[in-house]
Amino acid sequence: MKRTEEDKIDLINRLKRIEGQVRGIQNMIEGDKYCIDILTQISAFEGSLKKVSLELLGEHTRCCVKNSIANGDGEKEIKELLEVFKRLSK
Amino acid sequence: MKRTEEDKIDLINRLKRIEGQVRGIQNMIEGDKYCIDILTQISAFEGSLKKVSLELLGEHTRCCVKNSIANGDGEKEIKELLEVFKRLSK
Amino acid sequence: MKRTEEDKIDLINRLKRIEGQVRGIQNMIEGDKYCIDILTQISAFEGSLKKVSLELLGEHTRCCVKNSIANGDGEKEIKELLEVFKRLSK
Amino acid sequence: MKRTEEDKIDLINRLKRIEGQVRGIQNMIEGDKYCIDILTQISAFEGSLKKVSLELLGEHTRCCVKNSIANGDGEKEIKELLEVFKRLSK
Repeated sequence: MKRTEEDKIDLINRLKRIEGQVRGIQNMIEGDKYCIDILTQISAFEGSLKKVSLELLGEHTRCCVKNSIANGDGEKEIKELLEVFKRLSK
Repeated sequence: MKRTEEDKIDLINRLKRIEGQVRGIQNMIEGDKYCIDILTQISAFEGSLKKVSLELLGEHTRCCVKNSIANGDGEKEIKELLEVFKRLSK
Repeated sequence: MKRTEEDKIDLINRLKRIEGQVRGIQNMIEGDKYCIDILTQISAFEGSLKKVSLELLGEHTRCCVKNSIANGDGEKEIKELLEVFKRLSK
Repeated sequence: MKRTEEDKIDLINRLKRIEGQVRGIQNMIEGDKYCIDILTQISAFEGSLKKVSLELLGEHTRCCVKNSIANGDGEKEIKELLEVFKRLSK
């Protein structure tokens, strides 16, 4: 699908920060840091990831799902949306 | 804490794969890939992350928490463990 | 909204089973059962609950959200859907 | 295991409230209430349930797991604890 350039830059910047967090966790393991501190970092980073997911999900619903329904269809898109939600809420 | 070299290498390798997955998602956004495919990737990658968390949690319980209790204490470690459980199960 | 009688009966039957599971957990606590067995029951029952949520979410998307969009609107419904996704995926 | 009477009464009271919430949801479905309101209730109720789980998990760790380790063992209890945490964090 076609995202605006602004949305793309914003998402990519968030993912670059997440990538930095993953590297940070590697360094903590390398440096024998305390497990609890590492796990706290991982849970913070799961939070950032969840925000990216919810943003993508919103974008997708407002764009692809909405357009398909407005064009008289949408069954396939609704099914996919519910499937992906099921996977994300595990 | 002191992990064995083998455990450290295994964890770091998994985190390097997760880092690769985050970069893969950036490329998917850059390349205007379909949202649902991106979200499917994100949920796969949350699964890999959860496995790393559970492994660290197990290692920590078997080592730090167990040692503190065996040394007649452990209240602080149990409290931390439960706090981190709470954050990870959100 | 208007559910079919069949859908309502199915959902209510599932919720009656969930209610029975909650009472079963009370009895386990009353009877000093082993914590791990109680927690295993709770996680089984969270699974049943998640299935009910996903079913309601699907029904809602296929009905209310779809109809509003087809009638040329849907912004409010999409916003609500995403809010409820966010709360359920916590 | 042996809980204090006070802990048992507190847990059972919480579970009775959760049971009431499940019946409330049945009534909402019976009364054709709006899906989003039902789902909001379900997510509130998942929150109450998670608190009960975390409390049981804490009680179990502070009691059974700790005692087994203090008695020079605990491997079985640690394994069970991690298994149950894995199921609860799904």
